[in-house]
Amino acid sequence: MAVQAKHNGGAAHWLPLLGWLRAYRPEYLAGDLIAGAVVAVMLVPQAMAYAMLANLPPHVGLYASIIPPVAYALFASSRALAVGPVAIVSLMVASVAGAVAAPGSAEHLGAAVVLALLSGIVLLVMGMARLGFVTQFLSHPVLSGFITAAAVLIGFSQLRHVLGVEGGGDNLPAMVVALWQSLGQVNGVTLAIGLTSIGLLLWMQGPLKGLLVRSGLSAPVAGIAVKTAPLVVVVLGSLAVALPGLDEHFGVSVVGRVPEGLPDFALPAVDLPLWRELVWGAVLIALVGFLESASVAKSLAARDRERIDPDRELKGLGLANIGASLSGGYPVTGGISRSVVNYSAGARTPMAGVLSALLIVLVLLFLTPWLAWLPHASLAAIILVAVVGLVDLHTPRRIWQYSRSEAVTLLTTAAVVLVVGVEAGIVVGVLLSLGLYLWRTSRPHMAVVGRVPGTEHYRNVERHKVETDPRVLLVRVDESLYFPNTRYLEDRLQELVWGRDGVEHVVLICSAVNFIDASALESLEELAGQFADSGVTLHLAEVKGPVMDGLEQAGFTRHLRGGRVFLSTHEAMKALGPRRRWVVPT
Amino acid sequence: MAVQAKHNGGAAHWLPLLGWLRAYRPEYLAGDLIAGAVVAVMLVPQAMAYAMLANLPPHVGLYASIIPPVAYALFASSRALAVGPVAIVSLMVASVAGAVAAPGSAEHLGAAVVLALLSGIVLLVMGMARLGFVTQFLSHPVLSGFITAAAVLIGFSQLRHVLGVEGGGDNLPAMVVALWQSLGQVNGVTLAIGLTSIGLLLWMQGPLKGLLVRSGLSAPVAGIAVKTAPLVVVVLGSLAVALPGLDEHFGVSVVGRVPEGLPDFALPAVDLPLWRELVWGAVLIALVGFLESASVAKSLAARDRERIDPDRELKGLGLANIGASLSGGYPVTGGISRSVVNYSAGARTPMAGVLSALLIVLVLLFLTPWLAWLPHASLAAIILVAVVGLVDLHTPRRIWQYSRSEAVTLLTTAAVVLVVGVEAGIVVGVLLSLGLYLWRTSRPHMAVVGRVPGTEHYRNVERHKVETDPRVLLVRVDESLYFPNTRYLEDRLQELVWGRDGVEHVVLICSAVNFIDASALESLEELAGQFADSGVTLHLAEVKGPVMDGLEQAGFTRHLRGGRVFLSTHEAMKALGPRRRWVVPT
Repeated sequence: MAVQAKHNGGAAHWLPLLGWLRAYRPEYLAGDLIAGAVVAVMLVPQAMAYAMLANLPPHVGLYASIIPPVAYALFASSRALAVGPVAIVSLMVASVAGAVAAPGSAEHLGAAVVLALLSGIVLLVMGMARLGFVTQFLSHPVLSGFITAAAVLIGFSQLRHVLGVEGGGDNLPAMVVALWQSLGQVNGVTLAIGLTSIGLLLWMQGPLKGLLVRSGLSAPVAGIAVKTAPLVVVVLGSLAVALPGLDEHFGVSVVGRVPEGLPDFALPAVDLPLWRELVWGAVLIALVGFLESASVAKSLAARDRERIDPDRELKGLGLANIGASLSGGYPVTGGISRSVVNYSAGARTPMAGVLSALLIVLVLLFLTPWLAWLPHASLAAIILVAVVGLVDLHTPRRIWQYSRSEAVTLLTTAAVVLVVGVEAGIVVGVLLSLGLYLWRTSRPHMAVVGRVPGTEHYRNVERHKVETDPRVLLVRVDESLYFPNTRYLEDRLQELVWGRDGVEHVVLICSAVNFIDASALESLEELAGQFADSGVTLHLAEVKGPVMDGLEQAGFTRHLRGGRVFLSTHEAMKALGPRRRWVVPT
Repeated sequence: MAVQAKHNGGAAHWLPLLGWLRAYRPEYLAGDLIAGAVVAVMLVPQAMAYAMLANLPPHVGLYASIIPPVAYALFASSRALAVGPVAIVSLMVASVAGAVAAPGSAEHLGAAVVLALLSGIVLLVMGMARLGFVTQFLSHPVLSGFITAAAVLIGFSQLRHVLGVEGGGDNLPAMVVALWQSLGQVNGVTLAIGLTSIGLLLWMQGPLKGLLVRSGLSAPVAGIAVKTAPLVVVVLGSLAVALPGLDEHFGVSVVGRVPEGLPDFALPAVDLPLWRELVWGAVLIALVGFLESASVAKSLAARDRERIDPDRELKGLGLANIGASLSGGYPVTGGISRSVVNYSAGARTPMAGVLSALLIVLVLLFLTPWLAWLPHASLAAIILVAVVGLVDLHTPRRIWQYSRSEAVTLLTTAAVVLVVGVEAGIVVGVLLSLGLYLWRTSRPHMAVVGRVPGTEHYRNVERHKVETDPRVLLVRVDESLYFPNTRYLEDRLQELVWGRDGVEHVVLICSAVNFIDASALESLEELAGQFADSGVTLHLAEVKGPVMDGLEQAGFTRHLRGGRVFLSTHEAMKALGPRRRWVVPT
């Protein structure tokens, strides 16, 4: 249903909500209801934990879980995407807002709310301008290095909650130093709660699932059942604190009083200097959030042979973030784990998201008094177990084997994220990967080729035993010709031609040339002239159709000064060298 | 002799001066002496005019003409390059120094001297780091737009001297407004001198040359003789002012007292905040200067089937600029017109440059009193006639025909140079041309192909009448696969495969794929899995040797889930579809 809705035309094209609502059928409700409930059960503890990760009060995470899924449903490009707070965006909010206000302060919260508004606007504008493609410029190595390093940063930022110490720092070295210095103040009871929570989470998500299956539950149901693990940890943690009053007697850090009821709707105060300071952070949050969301939406859609519309996805996420901001929340996106659960639990339409939002409303209306006893250590345990899955050491190893230079890009991105920060890491990674590509294409592979005896095939003289004619130099260039490589091409050709005696013809084989830009055209014309002045004729061979169209339009052949454009290398050899001696190199 | 010197080994490799000095022969001296004298005759008026263009006292141009050619000779990569003040670099100095000090002030001169030092250091470091290739990133359209727009800016900046008004402004609109407002104050005598100078220059460089040839002079000699035109204009202009005392009675603006004798040697005062302000300007001046110099050196070398060494060229220009700075001069480079004259007049070695420097020394020692009467209008006329040759309207028209998007890059560069400034223009141009290239490669051309009946050739189904098999989809992609185009490739392939019924095999034809980066590898693996899940097998064909090596090393074929890599498209069809019906579309 994803992409088709776009073609329903009319109103549904502009407001996809109408598309899927009109097509809604009663039998969808069961799947949507179950999925919505399962996601809500995961979302309550996760939303609070991620808000804590963003250095915000935990209830802000719940605020960010109500309007966003409903707003997303208006433009929903993916039916199963679960929109709400996620770990990496929360880390970025902590970093960007932390640069303008002290963590935990009212200004920090204000900055987070502004970030949601700004990144929402960025996403919406990108969607309207059809700029979904820009995330393509985050390469796989950059993303891999970024995510793993961000997960490590997230993990270290939460260790202090498990240890019950002060900690601090916004990069890895600072965090390690702060933790090291406060090791003497570890709170034993907090640590016990934290370790127990971690153990319980790991046990439920691991061995328990097997146990349930062996005791007769179907695998999918068992899979969904163990997703209640964070809720169990939160409930048990709160009970443990509430019963013996651990918070008062042993200094176990807890969430404390959570405002009852629903958030107020309000536009963030317009503070242009602050907005200007936050806008680049908001752009990066928008890009990273969109990327996470789009990649999970895409992979879920592919399971049904469907595709998502990235521009609609941008608009949906844009509205979701604006909605988050207006209701006192912070930046959100489609999270990987909850979306997968939503899909597996049977979500048929974005109604599932709307239903899980309703359940969050019930929590805020009736359960907030219970949240006061929730220990920070339990929330930190949930984050720690969640981000372990983001640490990926397989990809770096694989990329290292495949391409050293891309592996260096990955490692550099990761190092900059860990030592300088998440935003700097992304920027450095993108510039490095683009620079690497430009560098690579600026020194294209070129080979002198000769004929495989008795055939019409031509191969590299350095790798194969082939026939050559000393008067005809056949050179193949394995790259499009464009401005960063024109000088290299000129230099290499001059070197090849002027470096050997008796060359009368050079044939440039263009089978791998997908286009020739104006700089390269100029360069080829100049080269043809220089060669002609020294008695050598330049020819081309195997020029592709569209490239040839352009060359003809520009009147290029006039500049060849007697040179020709041959359909194939063999035709060039037949025309230029048939009566000549072929030499087989030994 | 250019490149060979490098291979003389030992000392000559490190100090190319030794190479060409050791090989110097008495018979070279005549050519070098004539060329040196001709260049000096051009250089005296041009150096003063270009210094005026840079808003510097004219004698600074002469100071910048002594040490630089001598310093350049130490590393000389080109034998005929004439190093000294040039128009475009002078304009850039006016702009960069004008941003930190009032034109004509002592601070402005100080900034210009610092710019020479900084750009000299930049060039030297680039040479040592072998970074000569970075100028490749200035594409032909960017350069063309930049040079023409800079020439227009230079022309407008000199009109006020010809009109004898105040004028001003550092961009085209400001200049036009300032000229318009001061049209009432035009100095008639100044205008007469200016127009006469322009007329004389045009007549000498045009009709006079023909006249000389017809009266029996050989064409090359006549060509060199008319190069004295600027000197004639300067001498006549000075005489006209000196005889009737036009400067006192009619307010004709003249150069005024020029310090007698040679410049003092001094290191510019170290003023780090100022240096930091100037450093980016110095980098751009270094790049543009190197580019002008390298392109003329390259084209002169090519006439003798030689090549220049860009890294040695960088070092030579670096020393030249450092030398200019130490002797109170401003940034210099190898100029196009004087270098061509130098070459044509018979320069055999960099000794020609050394000899012209000696002649400038004589001018400074004995002729400075005469320079005081030199009218600014004559210098402006020299600049105006010189830059007219830089305005190139043919290239934009040609590029417009060849590639609209590159033409837009050219026009945008020119517009930014005219309206914002020269430095902004270069930066915008480079970013635009790189962005355009990335955009182009991020949406590669893809074609579904079929067999030309009865052959082993496969062509685009939309352009040719070919046979296809509905169960085997053959798709050719005309670009290397790398991160900016992986999503596009995925989307298009999914659209092609899932958009038609009955497809069992997809063959991706990689004849134009010069490399596959790690992102694209990951994407192909994922795609193969998605297709396999929906009953479609992905195959590759015509994968190039080096690309295949990488794929094999990464164990890619395991991910094809039954798919294969075929040597040719025809082999793929023989293996996948031989027993199947071929369909010829009508």
